[in-house]
Amino acid sequence: MKYCRFMNGQNEIGYGVIQGEMIQLLDKNFLDPSNKQTNAWVSLDEVTLLAPVLPSKVICVGLNYALHAKELNHALPDDPVIFLKPPTCVIGPDEEILYPNMSQRVDYEAELAVIIGTTIKDVTEAEAIEGIFGYSCANDVTARDLQKKDGQWTRGKSFDTFCPIGPWIVTEVDPSQLDVRLLLNGMVKQSSNTRNFMASVPKLVSFISQVMTLLPGDVVLTGTPEGIGPMLPGDEVIVEIQSIGQLRNTLR
Amino acid sequence: MKYCRFMNGQNEIGYGVIQGEMIQLLDKNFLDPSNKQTNAWVSLDEVTLLAPVLPSKVICVGLNYALHAKELNHALPDDPVIFLKPPTCVIGPDEEILYPNMSQRVDYEAELAVIIGTTIKDVTEAEAIEGIFGYSCANDVTARDLQKKDGQWTRGKSFDTFCPIGPWIVTEVDPSQLDVRLLLNGMVKQSSNTRNFMASVPKLVSFISQVMTLLPGDVVLTGTPEGIGPMLPGDEVIVEIQSIGQLRNTLR
Repeated sequence: MKYCRFMNGQNEIGYGVIQGEMIQLLDKNFLDPSNKQTNAWVSLDEVTLLAPVLPSKVICVGLNYALHAKELNHALPDDPVIFLKPPTCVIGPDEEILYPNMSQRVDYEAELAVIIGTTIKDVTEAEAIEGIFGYSCANDVTARDLQKKDGQWTRGKSFDTFCPIGPWIVTEVDPSQLDVRLLLNGMVKQSSNTRNFMASVPKLVSFISQVMTLLPGDVVLTGTPEGIGPMLPGDEVIVEIQSIGQLRNTLR
Repeated sequence: MKYCRFMNGQNEIGYGVIQGEMIQLLDKNFLDPSNKQTNAWVSLDEVTLLAPVLPSKVICVGLNYALHAKELNHALPDDPVIFLKPPTCVIGPDEEILYPNMSQRVDYEAELAVIIGTTIKDVTEAEAIEGIFGYSCANDVTARDLQKKDGQWTRGKSFDTFCPIGPWIVTEVDPSQLDVRLLLNGMVKQSSNTRNFMASVPKLVSFISQVMTLLPGDVVLTGTPEGIGPMLPGDEVIVEIQSIGQLRNTLR
């Protein structure tokens, strides 16, 4: 199933299941297990797709592809290295990424986003899989100069608009072998596959759940492959993940 | 004014203004500007005080006292170094801090907590003051071994229960010269004053607002003074801030 959150022409927020070029409306948020499909439909081109979830937290994994750690001159960690992006940086497909005054170098980072479906804490890898709702595309936008200057990655990762997620959530996906690509103004800049992950999705979610309770709608970003680089105002950036789709944003 | 959030004997959550040993009830959350005082009162000893806010994010400032940076062998940063704690780690007064299996060294860190009252973004220092609702006590509990191992501070700072806040919020406080103390099992372990801040409260809030939009109820932790050290299961830990009060928790 392909779930979306959208705004219609009357500025009302809705939830639905995408089938071809149409959306079958749900009576409530797809994260609510009691949601039901209705008999109402709307055309995809009549609505604006929004970030599919409003997470209470976005947990990111650094250095989950060996070749990306190498390009940053980082040693490979024993355990996944995690960091947080604040909920205020989440935007949806086609929204603008704002270039902050504080930075001179803003990079794209294509990432597979894991959307949590149930409250989980201290779960095994098998239980982690049960707690996952689905998958989406994300761009872990990063002010690279501030990331390096601060040592701590938070400031460089936390500017408003620095976490595009979307365009929808796909539920029947095997996350272990998906092509992940980034296109900047149509040119392929990152191209890898999630089979190159150092820690698998179930391992990451289980590990994070040993630290903090994960709630429905929370998002885990699974790290970016090699090929990171800068963007400039006016650029178009697309994160493309096999079996999921394309997340497109522009820079201002 | 001294605002609190509490649970009564019927497990209902309420909001009120503390006057002596009594709470005058509010008709809604004190963060809602339309809140009104009612004619209902309840005794402080009949209720359980809760964390006074449920923040959408907790933004922390590292190394804001020079002597603490020195004890960690950190160079003093040009700009404040920020990091995030997830909302899931917030607990209230008298709640238990849980010692995680992953860590062998869990430290207290006494901190002044700034509670944001209105939505602010890109504000000056003067505007930042207007956006502050009040002040509380917080303990930035830290798994020191994991903080050092990861380099990134997130994992060591993010375990469930690692952010006690309370016991209430005081609104008429000058944050520029408050004694901050930490007592472990009755022994004073940290003792400083916010006049030793490297960056003042208005400067910190203004700086953070250049990065991310701050929302009502968001919390800024302003850094801890020198004297950090470990806690063990069974310990009682108290953060005491002049003109605010004492935040007490125990370790399990």
